[in-house]
Parts: sequence; structure tokens; C-alpha cells
Amino acid sequence: MESTGLSTGSGGTFQVYDTTLRDGAQQEGLSLSVQDKLLIAGHLDDLGVGFVEGGWPGAIPKDTEFFRRAAEELTLKNAVLTAFGATRKAGVAVHDDPQVKALIDSLAPAVTLVAKSDIRHVERALRTTPQENLAMITETVRHLRDHGRRVFVDAEHFFDGYRFDRAYALEVVRAAAEAGAEAVVLCDTNGGMLPNQVADVVRDVRQGSGADLGIHCHNDTGCAVANSLAAVDAGVIQVQGTLNGYGERTGNADLITVVADLELKLGRKVLPDGRIHDITRIARAVDEIANVAPYNRQPYVGASAFAHKAGLHASAIKVDPDLYQHIDPAGVGNDMRMLVSDMAGRASIELKGRELGFDLSSDRDLLGRVTGRVKQLEADGYTFEAADASFSLLLHEEVHGTRPVYCDVESWRVITEFHGGAAVCEATVKLTAGGVRTVATAEGNGPVSALDHTLRQALLPVYPELERMKLTDFKVRILDGASATDAVTRVLVETTGNGAVWQTVGVGPNMVEASWQALLESFVYGLHFSGVPSRL
Amino acid sequence: MESTGLSTGSGGTFQVYDTTLRDGAQQEGLSLSVQDKLLIAGHLDDLGVGFVEGGWPGAIPKDTEFFRRAAEELTLKNAVLTAFGATRKAGVAVHDDPQVKALIDSLAPAVTLVAKSDIRHVERALRTTPQENLAMITETVRHLRDHGRRVFVDAEHFFDGYRFDRAYALEVVRAAAEAGAEAVVLCDTNGGMLPNQVADVVRDVRQGSGADLGIHCHNDTGCAVANSLAAVDAGVIQVQGTLNGYGERTGNADLITVVADLELKLGRKVLPDGRIHDITRIARAVDEIANVAPYNRQPYVGASAFAHKAGLHASAIKVDPDLYQHIDPAGVGNDMRMLVSDMAGRASIELKGRELGFDLSSDRDLLGRVTGRVKQLEADGYTFEAADASFSLLLHEEVHGTRPVYCDVESWRVITEFHGGAAVCEATVKLTAGGVRTVATAEGNGPVSALDHTLRQALLPVYPELERMKLTDFKVRILDGASATDAVTRVLVETTGNGAVWQTVGVGPNMVEASWQALLESFVYGLHFSGVPSRL
Repeated sequence: MESTGLSTGSGGTFQVYDTTLRDGAQQEGLSLSVQDKLLIAGHLDDLGVGFVEGGWPGAIPKDTEFFRRAAEELTLKNAVLTAFGATRKAGVAVHDDPQVKALIDSLAPAVTLVAKSDIRHVERALRTTPQENLAMITETVRHLRDHGRRVFVDAEHFFDGYRFDRAYALEVVRAAAEAGAEAVVLCDTNGGMLPNQVADVVRDVRQGSGADLGIHCHNDTGCAVANSLAAVDAGVIQVQGTLNGYGERTGNADLITVVADLELKLGRKVLPDGRIHDITRIARAVDEIANVAPYNRQPYVGASAFAHKAGLHASAIKVDPDLYQHIDPAGVGNDMRMLVSDMAGRASIELKGRELGFDLSSDRDLLGRVTGRVKQLEADGYTFEAADASFSLLLHEEVHGTRPVYCDVESWRVITEFHGGAAVCEATVKLTAGGVRTVATAEGNGPVSALDHTLRQALLPVYPELERMKLTDFKVRILDGASATDAVTRVLVETTGNGAVWQTVGVGPNMVEASWQALLESFVYGLHFSGVPSRL
Repeated sequence: MESTGLSTGSGGTFQVYDTTLRDGAQQEGLSLSVQDKLLIAGHLDDLGVGFVEGGWPGAIPKDTEFFRRAAEELTLKNAVLTAFGATRKAGVAVHDDPQVKALIDSLAPAVTLVAKSDIRHVERALRTTPQENLAMITETVRHLRDHGRRVFVDAEHFFDGYRFDRAYALEVVRAAAEAGAEAVVLCDTNGGMLPNQVADVVRDVRQGSGADLGIHCHNDTGCAVANSLAAVDAGVIQVQGTLNGYGERTGNADLITVVADLELKLGRKVLPDGRIHDITRIARAVDEIANVAPYNRQPYVGASAFAHKAGLHASAIKVDPDLYQHIDPAGVGNDMRMLVSDMAGRASIELKGRELGFDLSSDRDLLGRVTGRVKQLEADGYTFEAADASFSLLLHEEVHGTRPVYCDVESWRVITEFHGGAAVCEATVKLTAGGVRTVATAEGNGPVSALDHTLRQALLPVYPELERMKLTDFKVRILDGASATDAVTRVLVETTGNGAVWQTVGVGPNMVEASWQALLESFVYGLHFSGVPSRL
């Protein structure tokens, strides 16, 4: 059987399928809120993947909520939102299975069903018969197709199953394909495979089943990327992976590396035009949202990926960088670094500025000045990838010579006191706004809450617009692990208001002070970009 | 030409060659002292590699010193100490080249010479002729052989050179082999290769040169391990790499993963008997010496490498772990870990308890009680998945009826004050320990730092053991909520001391109070599990 010729999410014949929000979320220590997932889905769409697997509606309440909100709030330009779930339960009619119903209710236009393909798992984990397992697959795929869904089947533990009982593993693939699955995805669930082995199995299964296949790898042998490439070489039409290789145990195949290898090393176009240039920015933005420390040695996009220790070849590199780099780092939005940290280049600053409505291309001096400041601030611990609002204010300052100012802060103080089994927080702010000096004191559940309440109390009489803006998330990251309490703290604050969501960043050795910076900046941004005039 | 039949460092025909101390040390942020290098060399020898490349004597003063001290202090049972250096300079007689002399003076029994194999590098970086480059190789190899050294040649930028001018690249390999190099190592210096490409080149060069070959890979395409395996499959007799994949840019091939794949996946015996069982301990020991944060997702040896998020399959894993793991983690000195999360059932709690030294299997009531408390606490915002120490204390409380107590806290307070452009923090703690009521006040860069300093000041006179424990990381997470500042805050604290690392968790609406909880619990855990008696 040749390719079904169905249109795919990426608009081509090859499918890039992201499972960051489902399988990636299995990573130890990773915990994504619904809002985090919506933001990441936006970045994945921006990257240009064909499918975004959003989670398991009906099994995980947070995921049900994600699909409900996604249907209302998420507009995807490249990706098809995909729900993940299991085939119907053994002995239950497919239209009576509440979990299958939840997949339909999710309104996701595509569904990926996980199915057992290892006979031992059928018998010992599902505790059913080989025949019933095949019926569960066939009926669930047909049922979803009847409801107009595109369907994929993840053949779980496929490679171990194939090794143990090739005939049954092939039957599973055939059953799924014949029932209407667009691709049957061979999953190296335990992650123990090597590239040549993957290629051999993919070739054999293609020939033996005639089905269109996909690949889903984990990194337990350090070969997730190479295994994925080997499967593509052997003819799969879909490659699954996660952003930055998040995932259980050693993680999934890093989709960033996989697509960069496919596009830049193998000349296969798998993303929409030009998207590969943005992978560094997107990889880092997702790390920030997931609150995962970026891996400096990550291929293509890591902070060290094109960092050369000065010495031996320093001058030669300057003259002839092509001889010392496997690709031009600008092609993936990264930069060669010879000395200390300087993440952003002019090109990415210019791009980012354009995204925020500032045209920097016509003024080389301005662009150079902004780039210089960003480099300095990022060296100090700031990050603008996940704090567009702070970056907008910085651009405003460089373009207009000054920042918007809504109040003049004299001092603030927070007292946290624990006594008699409970802690209370109280903040005092002294500032001038609307021509009046105000001293406000308010309590809060914690220092940021106390500062938020106090600042609102002081500013609301002058800026009633603040009533419609609300602090909705904040994140704290310790930037240098060597001595945690003396290290630099980075605080990201997310604010929601007037139908928009924006992020600001504060940095400093003191967690409370960094929070204050980000908090005040979120107020300033919210007021300024809603068109509220300063009433100093 | 068949294998030369020369004896090799590993005592077999295949050579495992470590370059952690030379190429690994090129990693951004890594800085090894001579003492560090001696300690790491001992661990590498213990691992059973055939060759330990110690550095570049004569070019780097620290490396010259390393070889001087190694000759006196280092006794290796498996490995051959190897010096790294360049071929003689263009236009200089080999016996007049001070750098070549330094290699001989290092007393290392083996020498690896780096040689140019890309004609463009010969012309643009060396600025000499193709013929002179060949003469430099031939003469330097012969000279070192005449001085009784085993010699390897690292053919730098080999793959790029081969692509640009195959004939010259092959000439370099032939010249080195004919002059007496035991193996010519093909280096993917820029790291841009993929496995099939590596295999094709290795096969062609073997055939075209008749030389014994080695492989040296970097991870710029995320394929360093797979590229190394592909080269082994294509017939190289030496594989180079670094411990934990340290190295410039994206790092070198991780020798830990490479040897585990070769031994456990491909059935090739490349280490002395039984050494593979120790790789987890050795990988972590070297991270410790190098002061590099361990990478949790590292294959085979990472802290997450065999960690399963509980729930769905926990009971199945308990019955049949082989179905859910690609190898037995004990085989590499690692452990299966069940992550305790809100999806956890009794089975995973029981497994987790066993891992921490508590047998819960015999007491169904106890197990039910612990499971219930974990579910309740996780619903409140705790996470035990990343806080084993807190979970241990909870188990201790349920098993023994009470927690260990080291002090009686009356009250604490933190004041953060911003005035005149700077914020300062000051904490006061009132507590009783060692029979004495203490009031301590100290400052800090932030509230956690201030509390840490104050608590230490109050407790150190009674518990001097705290001197050896240090707060090394903390994370703050705002848990889902419509309004962030009123939401629940989760703080994870990591403490290091006495060769161990442990994590505790604190939860509450107040970020400072949650930090206090986690901080105090980390002290309690550290004291209790070091066997320090309570001196209330």
C-alpha cells in the first residue's frame, strides 16, 4: 500500500507530531498547568509542527479542561490539535465506553489511540485475549472515524512485542490500518532500541503490513534522535517527539534536534518555510513556561551549542567560521559565542521587535543598542524570551528615550511573621501618583500577594483600570545552583486583563525584590498598552 | 590489512579510549585542577577504560604538572596513560620541536597526535603545503615510536575533509598508519555527522587505507552515541569519548552510554569483567569532582533513567518489572524509582517505601494510611515525586508515630525593606535547642537566605554537624489557581552534605512560610539520617 494521500497537518506528506503536552509531561518534576499547556501549544504551532497532542481527556481532569479551553481560546495556524486516549475497555461496547466518549467530546479533530501490540502486555496488563485486543482496536478506530475524526494508533511496546511475537505485532498494525488509522506509530516505549534495529523492524513491518507507519522513540540508549532518523530513512511518514526531549526516564526524542537534522542535514523539508530559523527562541520559551532549566549542551539551540572556548583556533574561527561549525548558527536562531554569554543576535532581536510592533530594521544604531542592552541584561540573568512585556518596555525606552511611568515609588517593605502556628504578611508602600503622596499598607497570604494588594490600594484611586488586570501566575528560578540562597533569582510574572495575557521579568539576589520589579512592570505594561495616560 | 594484533590497553582487541581530561575539559564552565584530574583518572581506570588521555603536556602548564604528578602518584590497573599533542611544527626538525619533546618528557607510555586531514585546514590554519603536513605526521609518529611510545593519530576535521577532498584525507590516514600509528582516529570535530554517513565513510577509509581506525564524535546532531556505534559496526577498533559526554559545544560522545550500549545491547565485551555494574557510581563521582550538576535524564545512570510516574502501570510494574524496563537497572548500579504522585496507588507507595528502607508490605493498615495521607497532601499541593526526604520523614512518622524533632520553634520573622534603591532582608528566629532558648537575627540577600543564616546561627552551637550541610538549590512553583498571589506556593529545597543530596518540600499560601518548612525539614532530615541524636 502506498501513502494514503490524505492531507496532513503539516500540509505535506510527512508528519511532525508533537507530544510534549502528553508524553513530555511525564518527565520527573514537570508539572504543567492548563495555562502553561495553552501557551506551549501556541509555541508548537508557531514552530510549525503538524500535530499537537494535548493530553488525555476523560482520564486526567486537567487535560479535559485543557481541551475545553483550547476549543474556545486556541487558534492554530499550522497544527491539528490531537487528543490521546486508549482503545475501548475489554468487554465494553465502544459507544458505552466513557473514556472513548470523552475523546469525542474533547472536540479535537484528531485522536491518537494507544493500543497494546506486545502479546505479553495484552495478557498480563490488559488481562484479555489477543482477539479481544484486536477487536478493541478495530472498533475504536472505526467508531472515531465514524465521528469524523482523523485517527492515529500508537502501538505501545511495539519493538519488544515484535521481538517476542512478530506475527501478533503485525496483526495489530494491520487491524489498526484496515480500520482506518491514518498511521500506525511504532513505539519504543521502553526505549531500548538502536538505529539499525529500528530500521530493520520498520522495513519489515511496512512490507508485512502495508500500513503507513510512524515512529515514537525514547532516549534510554542515548539514540532517540538517531532511532527516529533511522525510521524516517526506512520509510515512516510520521515522527513523534517532544520539545527539548522532555519525557519520562531519559526523555523522548527531542523534536528540535530531529527536525533540525531532517531539514539541515538530510535536506527534508518538514516544517513550514522559515520556521527552522526560530527554533532556538521557541525551545527556550518552552523551557521557561515549563520551568525547566535549559540544557546548555542541547544540539542546535543550547547556549553552548556554538560556544567555542577561546584559544587554539580563535583567530582562525573569526576569519573562517565555516571551517569550525557544522552549520551557520544564525540559521537556527542561535549564535556563535567566543567569549562570555551573549545569547541574542541582531537578527533575532530585529525579528522579535517586529513581532511586538517595533520596526528596528531601518535604524542600525538603535538595533545595535538594543542588542547590546539585551546581551548585558541576559548576562545578568534576565530572559526576554518568556517576558515579551518587559522586552516591549525596553524597546519603548530605546525607541522613545524613556519608559512609561505611572507612579514615583519612594520605598516599600514586607514583613512576614510566624507566630502561634500561622504566618502573616504585611506590606507598606510609599509612592506618589495623581499628584498625591500615598502611604498604603495591606496584608496578603505571602510577600508578593501583600505587595500586589498594597500597590493596588495605592494606585486604584488614580488608575481604576487596574481593577480589570489580575496577576495569574508567577515563577521563580534560582539561576546559579552553586550556593542557592546567595544566587541570583529570576521571577516571571503573568498578568491577565482585557482579554490579553502578558509576562514580565524581574531579577535580583532577593526573591522579593525581583518579584516587586516584575509586579510593578506588569502594572506599567498593562496600563500603557491599554492606552491609559500617565497621571503622575 | 587485518588488525595489527598489537596488545591494547584493555587487554583485548577493542580499545575504549577516554578523553575526559583533555577534550572533556573543553566544556563551557568546566575547570579541573591537577588534583581533580588525578582523582578522575583513578575513576576512569576503575571503570576499566583502556586509555586515559591526560592532557597536552608542554602546551598547557597544568597538564605538564598533571603528567609529572601522575608519573609519581598514579598507579593504573587497567588504563594506559596517554599524552595528547600536535605533530611537529611546519619547517621544524622533529627533534628540535619543544612541544614534541614535552610529549616524550611526560613519560606517558602512549601519545595521541592531532593531525590535520582537511586540506583547507592545512592551507588556511597551518599555512603549509599538503606535502609538508604529511611529512610532519610521518616524522612525528616515527620519532615517538623510536622513543618506545605507542602512538595514535587523531585525524582532525576528518569527515569534512573527506567530503571536500577524499584523496588527501586518505593520504593522511595512510601516512600515519605506515609510520607506525596503532590506530588512526577519524574525528568528527565539528560534530555534524549522522550514523549512516559515518558508517559509509569508515568502511570506505578502511578499504582505501588498510589502516586500523578509531572514532571520535561530538554531539552536534544529537547522534554522538549512535555515530560511535555506527563506526564500531563498520569496523573501527577504538572508540573515543568522555565521561557523561562532557565537551565543547554539545559535548563529546558519552562513553558511559557508549560502553553500556556495546555491552548490554550489542553483546560486545569492552570493559573488564563486572565493571559495567559500577557505571552509575563512577558517573556520579566524576560529576561530583568536576562540579557539574548531574543530568537526570542521562541514559543508564541518570537519576530519572529508571523512574516511573506511578499510577496506571504501578501494579503491573511491581509484578513484572521486565516488561517496563529495557534493562535491569541493578545491572548498571542504578535503581528503579517509583515517583510518588497524586496518581499513586498502594503498589507504588509500597515500592517507594521499600526503596527508602521501609517495609510496608506486611502492614496493610499502615500502607492504606500512608497512601491516604499522600493523596491528601498532594491534593493540597505537596509533591513527593521530587522530595524523597520529605516522604521519608512522613513514613518515619507513620511507622514510629512521631517525627524526629531537633528544636522547638517559638516564632520567626523576615523583614524585606526597599529604600534608597536597594532591598535588604533580615530574619529573626526564636527557638529552644540543647535546653537553651535562643533569639538569633541575621541578614541575607533574600528571605530564604536570611532564614537559612538565622537558623544556622541558632542551631550550630547545639548541632555542629550542620556545618557540613549546604542548601544547594531551591525552586518555587505557584500551583494552579485563578489568582496567583492567593494561590498555593510549593517550594522544593535541595541540600547537599556528607556526600549525599536530598530534597524537601514545603507548601503554603505564603512563599516565605513554605520555604521555611522545606528549609527546616531539610535540616531535620540531614541530622536524623546522619544519625545525629536529638539534643532538644
